[in-house]
Amino acid sequence: MRIQIINPTTTEAFARKNLAAAKSVAAAGTEIVSASVLSGPASIESHYDEAVSTIGILEAIHRGEAEGIDGYVIACFGDPGYLAAREIARGPVIGIAEAAFHLASIIATRFSVVTTLARTKIICEHLLQIHGFEHQCRRVRACGLEVLELEETGMEACRDILEECRRAVAEDEAGAIVLGCAGMADLADHIQQEIGVPVVEGVTAATKLIEGIVALRLGTSKVGDLAYPLPKPLSGSVKHLEIAPRR
Amino acid sequence: MRIQIINPTTTEAFARKNLAAAKSVAAAGTEIVSASVLSGPASIESHYDEAVSTIGILEAIHRGEAEGIDGYVIACFGDPGYLAAREIARGPVIGIAEAAFHLASIIATRFSVVTTLARTKIICEHLLQIHGFEHQCRRVRACGLEVLELEETGMEACRDILEECRRAVAEDEAGAIVLGCAGMADLADHIQQEIGVPVVEGVTAATKLIEGIVALRLGTSKVGDLAYPLPKPLSGSVKHLEIAPRR
Amino acid sequence: MRIQIINPTTTEAFARKNLAAAKSVAAAGTEIVSASVLSGPASIESHYDEAVSTIGILEAIHRGEAEGIDGYVIACFGDPGYLAAREIARGPVIGIAEAAFHLASIIATRFSVVTTLARTKIICEHLLQIHGFEHQCRRVRACGLEVLELEETGMEACRDILEECRRAVAEDEAGAIVLGCAGMADLADHIQQEIGVPVVEGVTAATKLIEGIVALRLGTSKVGDLAYPLPKPLSGSVKHLEIAPRR
Amino acid sequence: MRIQIINPTTTEAFARKNLAAAKSVAAAGTEIVSASVLSGPASIESHYDEAVSTIGILEAIHRGEAEGIDGYVIACFGDPGYLAAREIARGPVIGIAEAAFHLASIIATRFSVVTTLARTKIICEHLLQIHGFEHQCRRVRACGLEVLELEETGMEACRDILEECRRAVAEDEAGAIVLGCAGMADLADHIQQEIGVPVVEGVTAATKLIEGIVALRLGTSKVGDLAYPLPKPLSGSVKHLEIAPRR
Amino acid sequence: MRIQIINPTTTEAFARKNLAAAKSVAAAGTEIVSASVLSGPASIESHYDEAVSTIGILEAIHRGEAEGIDGYVIACFGDPGYLAAREIARGPVIGIAEAAFHLASIIATRFSVVTTLARTKIICEHLLQIHGFEHQCRRVRACGLEVLELEETGMEACRDILEECRRAVAEDEAGAIVLGCAGMADLADHIQQEIGVPVVEGVTAATKLIEGIVALRLGTSKVGDLAYPLPKPLSGSVKHLEIAPRR
Amino acid sequence: MRIQIINPTTTEAFARKNLAAAKSVAAAGTEIVSASVLSGPASIESHYDEAVSTIGILEAIHRGEAEGIDGYVIACFGDPGYLAAREIARGPVIGIAEAAFHLASIIATRFSVVTTLARTKIICEHLLQIHGFEHQCRRVRACGLEVLELEETGMEACRDILEECRRAVAEDEAGAIVLGCAGMADLADHIQQEIGVPVVEGVTAATKLIEGIVALRLGTSKVGDLAYPLPKPLSGSVKHLEIAPRR
Repeated sequence: MRIQIINPTTTEAFARKNLAAAKSVAAAGTEIVSASVLSGPASIESHYDEAVSTIGILEAIHRGEAEGIDGYVIACFGDPGYLAAREIARGPVIGIAEAAFHLASIIATRFSVVTTLARTKIICEHLLQIHGFEHQCRRVRACGLEVLELEETGMEACRDILEECRRAVAEDEAGAIVLGCAGMADLADHIQQEIGVPVVEGVTAATKLIEGIVALRLGTSKVGDLAYPLPKPLSGSVKHLEIAPRR
Repeated sequence: MRIQIINPTTTEAFARKNLAAAKSVAAAGTEIVSASVLSGPASIESHYDEAVSTIGILEAIHRGEAEGIDGYVIACFGDPGYLAAREIARGPVIGIAEAAFHLASIIATRFSVVTTLARTKIICEHLLQIHGFEHQCRRVRACGLEVLELEETGMEACRDILEECRRAVAEDEAGAIVLGCAGMADLADHIQQEIGVPVVEGVTAATKLIEGIVALRLGTSKVGDLAYPLPKPLSGSVKHLEIAPRR
Repeated sequence: MRIQIINPTTTEAFARKNLAAAKSVAAAGTEIVSASVLSGPASIESHYDEAVSTIGILEAIHRGEAEGIDGYVIACFGDPGYLAAREIARGPVIGIAEAAFHLASIIATRFSVVTTLARTKIICEHLLQIHGFEHQCRRVRACGLEVLELEETGMEACRDILEECRRAVAEDEAGAIVLGCAGMADLADHIQQEIGVPVVEGVTAATKLIEGIVALRLGTSKVGDLAYPLPKPLSGSVKHLEIAPRR
Repeated sequence: MRIQIINPTTTEAFARKNLAAAKSVAAAGTEIVSASVLSGPASIESHYDEAVSTIGILEAIHRGEAEGIDGYVIACFGDPGYLAAREIARGPVIGIAEAAFHLASIIATRFSVVTTLARTKIICEHLLQIHGFEHQCRRVRACGLEVLELEETGMEACRDILEECRRAVAEDEAGAIVLGCAGMADLADHIQQEIGVPVVEGVTAATKLIEGIVALRLGTSKVGDLAYPLPKPLSGSVKHLEIAPRR
Repeated sequence: MRIQIINPTTTEAFARKNLAAAKSVAAAGTEIVSASVLSGPASIESHYDEAVSTIGILEAIHRGEAEGIDGYVIACFGDPGYLAAREIARGPVIGIAEAAFHLASIIATRFSVVTTLARTKIICEHLLQIHGFEHQCRRVRACGLEVLELEETGMEACRDILEECRRAVAEDEAGAIVLGCAGMADLADHIQQEIGVPVVEGVTAATKLIEGIVALRLGTSKVGDLAYPLPKPLSGSVKHLEIAPRR
Repeated sequence: MRIQIINPTTTEAFARKNLAAAKSVAAAGTEIVSASVLSGPASIESHYDEAVSTIGILEAIHRGEAEGIDGYVIACFGDPGYLAAREIARGPVIGIAEAAFHLASIIATRFSVVTTLARTKIICEHLLQIHGFEHQCRRVRACGLEVLELEETGMEACRDILEECRRAVAEDEAGAIVLGCAGMADLADHIQQEIGVPVVEGVTAATKLIEGIVALRLGTSKVGDLAYPLPKPLSGSVKHLEIAPRR
């Protein structure tokens, strides 16, 4: 099977990190493909960034469907456009926030999220609400870093994240930590060793979930809410996303 | 004050309907401006349509801010991109679904929504959940019409909608009806007369809410979650949405 | 149109403040009428005060209906008797807490309330629960002042409220503040300038909401839950509230 | 101990029924006292009726406190004024809806409520929401009877109620029924025999709960939200409810 | 009537405490019977302890049913096996956590729980969620004591609990305290005197609730979810719990 | 890695079905081990059956830990004892209901559950509530079959289940179906072909989830709520479950 890891930013370092993370956990027989978006922002840390990054994600999935991709990971912790993406995909699609929530809630009764800038917490909180993980998540914490500071994660950035994780364990009594940014994909092992509770990282979590769903021969429901969109004319800067009538 | 009614589809008939609806309720001194999007779909009835229509909405708000617009109405019942839109606007922004929910919950203890295709119900249900109106909304109902069938609303479309509204009153014991599509903006009065309970139409509801908020000299909070997005490079088909660093 | 601002206490200073606040935001063509209650407490800061103040509010609305009032504002942050009031009114009725919640949730993702005595917080929390704003409201805070200390708001009272508002922004990460007492109606502008986030004041918020609903030719649903009460004999100290059979 | 059963209507037949019901379950040593209100409506079936009946209830509790009553039952299924009542009572106070919800949720996983007019369902639903019984209650059903038709419950009224109870068992899979009106206090045994699931009647449920709480030497918390109201001037038709400063 | 107090640990001191507590509040005519379990752990402070203690509880109820017991109290704050217990009992069954939640929510708008080890908080939180008391409970607090430290409650243990209760009143603004362990049954009076808010202790609360329900001639619903289990073969270490087909 | 599929009933046909189902989806390198319980009921369809089956499950996990098992699947749709099981396991543990909920919510916006006897619906509903899937699950449906009728699933049983699945799609607008019994493990493919929406079967779903979590080198959090239980004496029929002090 082939799984596409969509890095919805235009920052290559993140794509490399995510590809490496996904490959490190893929089963024998699973091919991990990296999709760098053509359209999108350098980093994602606002509703606006989420909205504009959705275009690149949809472009990537259209390409992926043409290439016969079996499942998709949206490697941004705000899960931009995940429902639109599901509509145009035959196989399963998951964002890394939702993926991490699912797995964290299986290995701990309560977890906390450690993310980047405080302004992105609301995006995470809305996802927790929509997906039903509000009881499982003790608290969403921000360490105050901008996403691009994680491009080449130095010691300083790592220290700030680690500190926040420690506070989550001590103050929130969190049994597990969810790392709240795809840019942290290379830090999970180190942090887990340091703090002594499971650390769930979304890119790897999503990869295994998609791999599992494909192995079960399940895909996105094509009946009802997530059926293929009705074909219709599109104009302007989104014209290339027009969907041809299905035969 | 100037309020921009953003019709996020490229179908002119809807823009005309929405403009007329907004103008019919605006106070003296309120100028209603219609913004037809340059980028977008002919109609919106899926998550995919919502996602691609967000681009045109953001384009329109960027233009609006340059022109000194005081507040914005997103005239699609899925409220596409409303949080991204708020980030780039100084004044208030509201989608017509949220607007209708607010007003319907003031004049009735419970309301029902009557929308178009069944597949759009989930979009409405997610909005009800995020905004906290799940107790107020008895049920989201679909009358089975495609949005474009409302372009020039004929007798038949109206009859189907009316039938569904009647069922909402009888079966859901709804004290008010929310019309679930901007394309129904011209039907509210007729339906209200027929069914005898208040019918809340989103374009007009949103216009009065924005007008009221502007009159109170309130605008979108520019501290925290909805502050202006951090400026950063954008690429590809969304490059024109790049935000210049604020001085 | 004529909107009645009901001050449900017998303290005239509050009625004056509320009238001034409402008039300052009313549109041309909207007449603001002040209804001072004949029956009621000097201030409202308990469930008991809420219960007894309801009588004066219902008296006022009966008078208002006879005078052809188009809509009503209940100028107490506990929204006493708002559902009973809606039953006997043709037009819309809103309390200032609910009004502030609606508008604050449009301009910020999360707000905090700053009210008077700690014992009134539960009244606000029940309203947030019933109206569905629990996710939107980060926290209800009390500044410890008795309501009557706000009769002629001196510097000291204002300072205490301001301090609590600052804490709400810093600790709750609130994007907007809701002032939790009609006696604070004259402080909103000053506080907003000081703390730099939007401050929503209920009397003005309610005035614009009622004005908007009346302009939309919507009123309280008279079908179902909020229909006129069935006429029946009343006795004792509430006899004067007996409703004559409708013709 | 002495428990006061407050019949908040002026209809004597209900007071007699409620007194008989409470006496039939009281323990040896518990004296049941009936308080017929001086102020109030002939029956209660709207928010308006609830609001005006609260005055008579508060009058009754003031008298009860002077007489050393140990606990109170508010014998109306809307639990009018129960929080205000708790503030002025030393001992426990409970309305019959809340009481029935507590006991029904102990003997069945899910119950349904059968009440009188459809318009009163919202009152019950708000109570279920505030008290946290929304998961426990499958459905609130109305049998369409006016409360006064239960004054002397004839065969016909009983049959309508019984029919609705049967539907609750068959359609809602309710494991217990809560009777939703004090006027049904004499029907519980008969209905229980007919339908074969436990039928919880509020007046008797409330009597045992208050008796139990008093026996535990517990009373209404006088710290915080339910402390005695601050004394203050009252005017007009509620002047007699003014509370003297506590020594 | 006869009520069985089931002490699901094998520690006799707890059984003695619970028996004394229940007897001290029972009405004349109520016989309190103590059931010490034959199978079970020395103390209960984990999900595992809860699970294994359920066996002893079910054994006790089978014996109780044979002896004609009218109602049961499960004297462990995790309410182990309460739904299974209800299925095999004719009369009512309640755990002391649920019992305390019901009564605390009647005498205060908000309460806090003070329990033993931090790891047991999740058990209490799940119960609050399932029973619907999440709004009523401000916070679940642990004082850090192991349950067996309460076997013969010395001064030191009491002091730690008292301190935590004081913090609950001061920091959570709790109007009542629920003691979160059957081993604290002898401390309620002392703590209540010290902290000045009502202290609800579960064994006594449960005793009065069961007594009340039996007096009302209500029992566990034997229709639907809580009907007697279908008889079937059991094997191994639970074989003795096999239920014979009912005649 | 080795994953143990625990069949908590003593009916061998179910163990065979579950083993076959798990093996059919396991990755190369994953060894599936079947653990038939020594203690337990012939089938599980009540709270009582759940409670007694927990003993056999805990016995199996103790054996599994001694054998170095990496993760566990509890193959009963009520997920009996899953939290106790997690406490004594190093690796991840999941019940088949929770597993199916996770995957179904990824491939559809809304799903329905089709289970066996109506009395088991409450068990499923409690799990949905605790795990946060109440919004995702449209409805829990029972087809009226006893679990043992699925031992060797004949045409008739299959037809009843299929009929209920069809109703779920048509009436609930479910985008996916969750099969609510381990005894249905061999029916998923057939039903999926018949009804045209994805059918999620818990044994296979759980197998892939556990496999994924183990591959991620994550296990049950051993800090806080799910840490190993404190060692303590156990007596009677559960004595063999006593845990030795950890070195």
